[in-house]
Amino acid sequence: MSARLQAIYLVRCDARSIEERARAIAVEQSVEMPVSAITDDFVRAEIVGRVETIAEKESNVFEVRISLAAETVGRDPGQFLNMLFGNTSLHEDVVLADVTVPKELIEAFGGPRHGLDALRRRVGAPARALTASPLKPQGLPAARLAQVAQDFARAGIDYIKDDHGLADQSYSPFAARIEAVAGALRSLEQAGGRGARYVPSLSGDLDTMRAQIGLAADAGVDAVMIAPMIAGFATMQRLVREHPAIAFFAHPAMAGAARIAPPLMIGKLFRLMGADAVIFPNHGGRFGYSAETCRALARAALAEEGGLRPCVPVPAGGMTTDRVREMLDFYGPDVMLLIGGALLEAGERLVAATSAFVAEVHGYRRG
Amino acid sequence: MSARLQAIYLVRCDARSIEERARAIAVEQSVEMPVSAITDDFVRAEIVGRVETIAEKESNVFEVRISLAAETVGRDPGQFLNMLFGNTSLHEDVVLADVTVPKELIEAFGGPRHGLDALRRRVGAPARALTASPLKPQGLPAARLAQVAQDFARAGIDYIKDDHGLADQSYSPFAARIEAVAGALRSLEQAGGRGARYVPSLSGDLDTMRAQIGLAADAGVDAVMIAPMIAGFATMQRLVREHPAIAFFAHPAMAGAARIAPPLMIGKLFRLMGADAVIFPNHGGRFGYSAETCRALARAALAEEGGLRPCVPVPAGGMTTDRVREMLDFYGPDVMLLIGGALLEAGERLVAATSAFVAEVHGYRRG
Repeated sequence: MSARLQAIYLVRCDARSIEERARAIAVEQSVEMPVSAITDDFVRAEIVGRVETIAEKESNVFEVRISLAAETVGRDPGQFLNMLFGNTSLHEDVVLADVTVPKELIEAFGGPRHGLDALRRRVGAPARALTASPLKPQGLPAARLAQVAQDFARAGIDYIKDDHGLADQSYSPFAARIEAVAGALRSLEQAGGRGARYVPSLSGDLDTMRAQIGLAADAGVDAVMIAPMIAGFATMQRLVREHPAIAFFAHPAMAGAARIAPPLMIGKLFRLMGADAVIFPNHGGRFGYSAETCRALARAALAEEGGLRPCVPVPAGGMTTDRVREMLDFYGPDVMLLIGGALLEAGERLVAATSAFVAEVHGYRRG
Repeated sequence: MSARLQAIYLVRCDARSIEERARAIAVEQSVEMPVSAITDDFVRAEIVGRVETIAEKESNVFEVRISLAAETVGRDPGQFLNMLFGNTSLHEDVVLADVTVPKELIEAFGGPRHGLDALRRRVGAPARALTASPLKPQGLPAARLAQVAQDFARAGIDYIKDDHGLADQSYSPFAARIEAVAGALRSLEQAGGRGARYVPSLSGDLDTMRAQIGLAADAGVDAVMIAPMIAGFATMQRLVREHPAIAFFAHPAMAGAARIAPPLMIGKLFRLMGADAVIFPNHGGRFGYSAETCRALARAALAEEGGLRPCVPVPAGGMTTDRVREMLDFYGPDVMLLIGGALLEAGERLVAATSAFVAEVHGYRRG
């Protein structure tokens, strides 16, 4: 008997039809053909998805647990997603709610290579919450973005990330941006200032991203950001494997709102693929995630799971310094707070506004 | 003035709030920060997304047209998707309905390298609808799948594709499958039978897929299948560029049901990325796409657009020979009909059942 994945789907369906519907999903996510026409014993016994349990969660919404043979995935991150939700993503009335991944696959994918403790160590902050700010807006030349980075660093920000819209555009090519931003942060540090870590955003295909990581590493940068749902899980895993000294921040672009539950997609799967930190829209900001979703997402990122390192939750998306206390009460200290627009709005007073954010985080005491 | 993308969103919103909501989407999809805090003239004039029109489509559903500078994309397929829907995909109440792509970007991405005419020429069928069948179920060894392929070929199927669940699993590794299936089809052809074209499914990361295409080409295979939403647009574009002799079939796994309208996602964007044929769930089968959605999708795949070659629509997902006439009435002859499970159900009589499907397509006369 080989290991099996357990996938949990939420299915909108009437009670009379749910058993048939559950079997149809199990077939769709495995052999994709009438089971009656399968004569091979191994395929019938092992490969056909099995409906393990069905439970009504609310009126006409059922939790269906289906197990799938781990052999169907091999060790391919793309095929992993394909087996969990490939064709069923085409059904509007099914949500992929959770997955239990067998030990073999957890070990094969490996999760964060650095994680919470390493990201804290890198900035000399062993216990408190971490801080981050983004370089924006896109359209500025590299030199202007470097000035913004210096201001954030002067104010004591731990991690300075590219806005996820920064790619390799003509107005601020990746190579020029690395040189300008990493150079600006280095000269600040050499002048006795506090070092801040730059997290540039990767774009393009696997080869382009490899070259970008090479440029970043040459400039002394040891973390990058990637959007797993744009780059592809397989691209991300390959980069994580090939660059063990680099930390990876995952961005939720194209991760959707609801069809794969955000705690699973961003908290659990991005972490499994190797994300050391996961950025997500905090409740009460520009996006519609609920407080409950955000709490579950942060827990999934940090939870003990098969020996994986904890991944840092990074709530973001319209946050303000006013909310720091409430956010730290909510998430606890194992978090990185990311504030962007609200600081940039301060204009000339960017350093002061950012310093206030940093002071609020550093000065926080629970209770 | 540089070229601009026009993105059309459908937004669920009350009439009082729609103007503000539209502006928020335009900002989210471009500079992602308060516009009041942007001092740079170029960024304000060109880079900030512009709300071009707002029109109420039905009660509390608005069509919002937003233009974005093409410079924000560069020539990066991943960044293209990111600019169109990256963060806005996180909002449950917004659908990306359509996109008008400027000529420069259409030329940069290039669309199908082969398209409808070439796929017809390859199988000597200059005018009629094409036929296809899938190798399944996964779990069978390569030799058994090769027998199924021979049966389909004997019955006169044009294109024989891997089931999208076939990856590089231990029970049927990609290399063994290529050797067995391509070998079986070749020996049939050498024995005087009709040649059928094999379309193996790619999996893994860019390097793995490159190696798979190499193995396929060595075995005389000239078409492959890829799932663009799993592999990533950038991975697909790179492969299309690097392998001009290979035709690409796109599979809709992970393409979702509704948040990006299927005619846009599968018909227009997959084609733009280089798909020569696009597989999608036909109405009235196992999936919920409407007839109207399917018609719009097929039209988008075939429509004149900036000189792109027409891409073959491949309706599938629970089709039967009974429906051939109705499907050809509906789609016309510029289509490839894909039937799988309904033929495999015939068991021992697979060749006969498949021959009936092929005869129905070949014998079809409109009217």
